Amino acid sequence: MNLLTSPLLTDLYQLTMMQGYVDEDMCKEAAFEFYVRSLPPSRGFLVAAGLETLLALLEGMRFTEEELKYIAGTGRFSKDLLDYLAKFRFSGDVYAMPEGTVFFENEPVVRVVAPMPEAQLIETRLINILHFEVLIASKAARCMLAADDRAVLIDFGVRRSHGAEAGLLAARASYITGFAGTSTVLAEPIFGIPIFGTMAHSYVEAHEDELEAFLSFARANPNNTTLLIDTYDVHKGARKAVEAAKRLKETGINVRAVRLDSGDLLVLSKDVRQILDQDGLKDVRIFASGNLDEYAIRDLLSQGAPIDGFGVGTKLDTSEDAPYLECAYKLMEYAGTPRFKKSQGKATIPGRKQVFRQFEDKTMVGDILTVEGDEIEGVPLLAKVMEGGRRIVGRQDLKEIAKYTRSQVKSLPAHFQRLETTPLYPVKVSPALSRLGQELERWLGL
Amino acid sequence: MNLLTSPLLTDLYQLTMMQGYVDEDMCKEAAFEFYVRSLPPSRGFLVAAGLETLLALLEGMRFTEEELKYIAGTGRFSKDLLDYLAKFRFSGDVYAMPEGTVFFENEPVVRVVAPMPEAQLIETRLINILHFEVLIASKAARCMLAADDRAVLIDFGVRRSHGAEAGLLAARASYITGFAGTSTVLAEPIFGIPIFGTMAHSYVEAHEDELEAFLSFARANPNNTTLLIDTYDVHKGARKAVEAAKRLKETGINVRAVRLDSGDLLVLSKDVRQILDQDGLKDVRIFASGNLDEYAIRDLLSQGAPIDGFGVGTKLDTSEDAPYLECAYKLMEYAGTPRFKKSQGKATIPGRKQVFRQFEDKTMVGDILTVEGDEIEGVPLLAKVMEGGRRIVGRQDLKEIAKYTRSQVKSLPAHFQRLETTPLYPVKVSPALSRLGQELERWLGL
Repeated sequence: MNLLTSPLLTDLYQLTMMQGYVDEDMCKEAAFEFYVRSLPPSRGFLVAAGLETLLALLEGMRFTEEELKYIAGTGRFSKDLLDYLAKFRFSGDVYAMPEGTVFFENEPVVRVVAPMPEAQLIETRLINILHFEVLIASKAARCMLAADDRAVLIDFGVRRSHGAEAGLLAARASYITGFAGTSTVLAEPIFGIPIFGTMAHSYVEAHEDELEAFLSFARANPNNTTLLIDTYDVHKGARKAVEAAKRLKETGINVRAVRLDSGDLLVLSKDVRQILDQDGLKDVRIFASGNLDEYAIRDLLSQGAPIDGFGVGTKLDTSEDAPYLECAYKLMEYAGTPRFKKSQGKATIPGRKQVFRQFEDKTMVGDILTVEGDEIEGVPLLAKVMEGGRRIVGRQDLKEIAKYTRSQVKSLPAHFQRLETTPLYPVKVSPALSRLGQELERWLGL
Repeated sequence: MNLLTSPLLTDLYQLTMMQGYVDEDMCKEAAFEFYVRSLPPSRGFLVAAGLETLLALLEGMRFTEEELKYIAGTGRFSKDLLDYLAKFRFSGDVYAMPEGTVFFENEPVVRVVAPMPEAQLIETRLINILHFEVLIASKAARCMLAADDRAVLIDFGVRRSHGAEAGLLAARASYITGFAGTSTVLAEPIFGIPIFGTMAHSYVEAHEDELEAFLSFARANPNNTTLLIDTYDVHKGARKAVEAAKRLKETGINVRAVRLDSGDLLVLSKDVRQILDQDGLKDVRIFASGNLDEYAIRDLLSQGAPIDGFGVGTKLDTSEDAPYLECAYKLMEYAGTPRFKKSQGKATIPGRKQVFRQFEDKTMVGDILTVEGDEIEGVPLLAKVMEGGRRIVGRQDLKEIAKYTRSQVKSLPAHFQRLETTPLYPVKVSPALSRLGQELERWLGL
């Protein structure tokens, strides 16, 4: 069974509910929406991401013979359900905000409209994909704000990301917000994302001499020469890098950069810049890594650290200060009637929704959440991207998404472009949507 | 390319270093150790996990034609390296603590001894696997301490885990600490882990009437009947569940449990217990879910909440209060000589190490970190599990691991079995290991 594409990467209750729906022939059209109930305290906005991953999954979703055999073997389900699963194809429509769109609480990012059992089955994996890519893109966008075009950022997080798929998708989610690339090799053949790499401490340690390690590494990788200088002592390491750069120059090899991975990066980067400059190595860049996040990057750059690039790893790929989002995928309509739940703290706003975004002088000033079809001033954010189980928009170039994300973030009000928590962005519920909720309460006798 | 097994799920620098090693013919034996530098403030101990996942990966690691073609196409690497990669098999030895062993900072959990380029290539994915499974097993063990045999725990986290593999491996990592099972279907065919499921709010919402939803769900799943009672109003929901249970009983269907997913679980569970008991439904269990973690479980149970089982989701699968560990995989020896780095805050203790655990009356009282081969009183924790690239121990039954984990946790000093942060467990460095470090400093002239 293929972990990444298997429809069995789902919660058991999706199958038990499908059993109920198939038994009762409740296969009419359902509309579900994916949204975030409330933003983590450390986030002023979120960034839509993961749509492409989701659409590819939905287009290919099938039960294999092996999976059907397993399901039959559990003895939990009827022959009718097994027949239904054997023929399963996702046949629904999907509406979504384009990847890179900034969004706020309660705003639908993706809406699925499909026969009830289909819309239900996909819930678990849909949330699993969208939640993670939104989580990382939103953290990465903050790192980009902190870098403020003064340094390039590279994703270094795969080793401490939560499993293989998280590592790969974190490379994607950070690249579409403007990162220059990633250290994760697989991201190049799979997504065409530029990859970057330097050397590890083990390489220096394995050699009897640090200088010898630098020389041999550069000869082996003449076009990719970044030297790691903090294995034993940064200042001595920097001087050895200077010595190496001079010797290598004679053989036509240019050392591109040195890397710092520990210690006080502000002080050390200034010292190292001086050591490099004294010897005329003004072109050699300084690259820094080691437990960095948006706050560290901002603080280093604002204090004048001469750092040209940052490797951002663990804290990005785990979204360390907000490792999950209060997201949900909820039933909003079934068989033409709006639906909702009133569970304490988790109530939903019923009906198919659209978000209109309003601007003043190209700056976002507020969003209005309303029923689909309502005519309101502003830019509607959701559009149909899949119809009858087939995508109706092409694959987007990731660089284009990155440009769009940048323009989105730049159109936020200025105080939302800072790292500190800001007041909530105004998201208003339209009169039409309020009325719908009230009518539904009356109708259900609540 | 298969994301889960591809050797390209690695950092680019592993390949650039391999280029150096192959060019210089530095393929002698290297020893690397995986350990955690320091524990997060909210953890008093960690639990070894992920070894089985790692060994399976190492045994099967190959470069496919497609991967070799991609690497050649990058133009970054020599024909010699490509030839090396085409023949690549992991041929090394692995020493490890058994899964389920509790461990502390600086203690090697896994040691890899292999020709340098092999030991280096596997670094990224080795950390990626061990880091995540240790992270989740350690959080899950705390949930088990909180439940204290008074309630069963089930992993509910796949939807907000970080990608597909995290969802699947979280089910495994929690099961081997004593969880009863998971909601993740795929965990049953892949790992043989028991799966559990109830119903979602959408099922209730899609029906015109809550009672009708309960009845139809139970008829469709007569052996798996847990009713979700908080969609609109818990008290009304509980009474409808009673009504449903009575009617279903006449047709031979037993309602097993009701589920609460929101609100004040202490108050609501007591109210619901009363409603159920009043009508003679003493056998119907109460199951709770919704943003739970070890603290919430402990608080609910210690205040007498009549809850029989908990679904633990997001906060478990993301290890929310400690979403990463300061772990490392570091070179300890190359070509027979110990190695170390002195990077600020990240210095290593050189040499191949063993951990001896000392007991008093079956209670752990302290660990001693020493050089391999040293004879010290206590139980040695690392043993060889793979030789020449082939495992020399069989696959362990997950239930057996769970028993072992339980016995490990129970042998911790009492104050380490509480949830609050405790003083550091005593891990001493032996005289032999201290001497080794001092000799190395002198030898390197540091």
